[in-house]
Amino acid sequence: MNPAPAPQRQPTPSPDAARILERIETLARITEQADGLTRVYLSPQHAEANRLVGSWMREAGLAVHVDAAGNLVGRREGDRPGLPCLMLGSHLDSVRNAGRYDGMLGVLTAIECVEALGDRPLPFAIEVVGFGDEEGVRFQATMLGSRAIAGTFDPALLDLQDAAGVSLRAALAAFGLDPAAIGSAARRREDVLAYVEYHIEQGPVLEAEGLPVGVVTAINGQQRFRVQIDGMAGHSGTVPMRLRQDALAAAAECVLAAERIATGVPDAVATVGQLAPSPGATNVIAGRAVFSVDVRSPRDADRTAVAAAILAECQAIAARRRVTIDIVQTHELASCGCAGWLQAQLSAAIAADGHRVVALPSGAGHDAMAMVALADVAMLFLRCRDGISHHPAESITAEDAATGARVLQVFIERFAPRR
Amino acid sequence: MNPAPAPQRQPTPSPDAARILERIETLARITEQADGLTRVYLSPQHAEANRLVGSWMREAGLAVHVDAAGNLVGRREGDRPGLPCLMLGSHLDSVRNAGRYDGMLGVLTAIECVEALGDRPLPFAIEVVGFGDEEGVRFQATMLGSRAIAGTFDPALLDLQDAAGVSLRAALAAFGLDPAAIGSAARRREDVLAYVEYHIEQGPVLEAEGLPVGVVTAINGQQRFRVQIDGMAGHSGTVPMRLRQDALAAAAECVLAAERIATGVPDAVATVGQLAPSPGATNVIAGRAVFSVDVRSPRDADRTAVAAAILAECQAIAARRRVTIDIVQTHELASCGCAGWLQAQLSAAIAADGHRVVALPSGAGHDAMAMVALADVAMLFLRCRDGISHHPAESITAEDAATGARVLQVFIERFAPRR
Repeated sequence: MNPAPAPQRQPTPSPDAARILERIETLARITEQADGLTRVYLSPQHAEANRLVGSWMREAGLAVHVDAAGNLVGRREGDRPGLPCLMLGSHLDSVRNAGRYDGMLGVLTAIECVEALGDRPLPFAIEVVGFGDEEGVRFQATMLGSRAIAGTFDPALLDLQDAAGVSLRAALAAFGLDPAAIGSAARRREDVLAYVEYHIEQGPVLEAEGLPVGVVTAINGQQRFRVQIDGMAGHSGTVPMRLRQDALAAAAECVLAAERIATGVPDAVATVGQLAPSPGATNVIAGRAVFSVDVRSPRDADRTAVAAAILAECQAIAARRRVTIDIVQTHELASCGCAGWLQAQLSAAIAADGHRVVALPSGAGHDAMAMVALADVAMLFLRCRDGISHHPAESITAEDAATGARVLQVFIERFAPRR
Repeated sequence: MNPAPAPQRQPTPSPDAARILERIETLARITEQADGLTRVYLSPQHAEANRLVGSWMREAGLAVHVDAAGNLVGRREGDRPGLPCLMLGSHLDSVRNAGRYDGMLGVLTAIECVEALGDRPLPFAIEVVGFGDEEGVRFQATMLGSRAIAGTFDPALLDLQDAAGVSLRAALAAFGLDPAAIGSAARRREDVLAYVEYHIEQGPVLEAEGLPVGVVTAINGQQRFRVQIDGMAGHSGTVPMRLRQDALAAAAECVLAAERIATGVPDAVATVGQLAPSPGATNVIAGRAVFSVDVRSPRDADRTAVAAAILAECQAIAARRRVTIDIVQTHELASCGCAGWLQAQLSAAIAADGHRVVALPSGAGHDAMAMVALADVAMLFLRCRDGISHHPAESITAEDAATGARVLQVFIERFAPRR
């Protein structure tokens, strides 16, 4: 290979988008359920997906191994062996009854881009990673694969158990891995120039903007709360309105307060997705209502302010309605900013393909949130139909898949490490 | 017995309230579950309750039989055999994990009043009925026992099945009854002067008024609806507030609209007791929300107006939020007015015991709703703690039980048939 820099490179062939989509269909058939896609960490389906995607990586010229955490890693050397890498990737696991693009699209497109590069010399290595766990379905802890690579995997996590009582330690061993060696999956900072993840948006913003791709500014931080309101149950016919302490009516007011407060803060979102009144009978006033509140923003200060305002309003609603309220924060994750220099290069690639550049936050969590502990990160989002994700109806167009692949390839070809 | 009228009767001893409460405890132990009271129509527990309560009826001097629908009937003749009767009673069945006063109090107090009458002659017969089914738990159709006595039992009901697939027809046969003869349980109008039911209030009005008893004006009519709102499910992090079609937020607005509209109409109540968002996950915007609406009023015109206003507001909320709404009425029952002449005599008995007379509607359904097809009806309500019913915490005080029994007895002794 020629070690000379290549400021004016010749165009390489475009990635084969049809093959990306074809492979996504093939991969979606590796599932634990007959109808629908479910593939969880360290399952037989995970092993089969690693074998299949690994074979595609090899066809694309990547040197393949499965690391100590079960992540599938393919490497293309740069001008000379051992150069630091541009790491691309996403996850190969899925939620239950999942869509087929979430995660998989990023891995398969990166492989196709590498294949299209042929033997074109680049002054950096490329690694494509298929993370074993991002969704956290099996062990209820997310991003176990990317945490291992980022070097932030806490060995205490090995004691986590799945629903069948199998520990993560035992699951790693059953997968043919040495749980005690999981630390060896961690990569060194100096070996990774950046981590760039290509992913479906999982939201409706690009569709509303009429654009196929967009650059992510930050991955939203999030807080989750469990709120329990206790009023007084009663017969729906016998308790006059003025004497009621209806827990569900109080919760309904809280739902609307969360919606109203988040709507007033740019880029912030608040969601009540769970709400369970009890006893939950047609003819009984709810004595209790338990609901979730999920608050996110790309700016941590906004997020905490929105969350605090919602909780204060819930307290006020409870006081006014003479019901008790108990609020527990169940989850908090700081936002993850995408590196400006990587955003700039992704934006340039989007513009080079002829599209207006739109920057948007990511409301969903991604492996990049774990990888930021190892390297600067960035994300390229692809439009998906109706913003639907985590559902079999998740869908993208072939034209968009081709656009995303071209943009990612241009980004790779023009990639200039920081400094 | 002396057939002469007795306008100036001598006082009889007061009913034995301690024994009423003692018997309620004994009766509560006849249950299908180890912890808590559940006794359903035509069950072995129903047969056992009929045997036990029947033995108490006989002790009180009543002639006892179980009718063709499984109702327990005890009769005390008047001055001469065969006179029309004042019918007293309530139900011996229960909801699941029930309270012990709902129904049972009325039956056992009536027995105690009859016993206290001794051989005092009255110009009318008294019958005490323990209805076999009021709650409708087993066959999902209420008041099967009182409908049979009222002569409104539809033979098509015999095909109803319980959760185990046992038909009402088969259940009657297993109880030792002839399903084909169920029509023989019906009574003739000319044989029943009035039906008067004594029952716990199952609501908080008397407690709030500081009164042990009250007279029921009417049993509320009711309408129930099932409302389904379909919006767009989405990731709680990725869909901006302005692009959401949150089915749960729309439903929350409907809950508050129902509350607000009913609060504006005297004696009307509206309740959303069931509400289920789906998929119902913390991090997913609800794409669907299904909820119940239960509307009641002692005045049918008010009820239908309140229901119509709530549904119109739900439609407007859905339109404004760009979600679809589907409303199905699942149940409607007209109100049942209590006869003025009976209310007047119950009021006089309350006043005679030294209490301010308060008149209130019954929000709950009662056997009286079925019995009104046979005779004029009225109800005497007893205060219960915190308005709680259909729950093991259902409770009354011994003092109130004594008061209620005295009032019922005075009512019986002074009872004057219409015209």
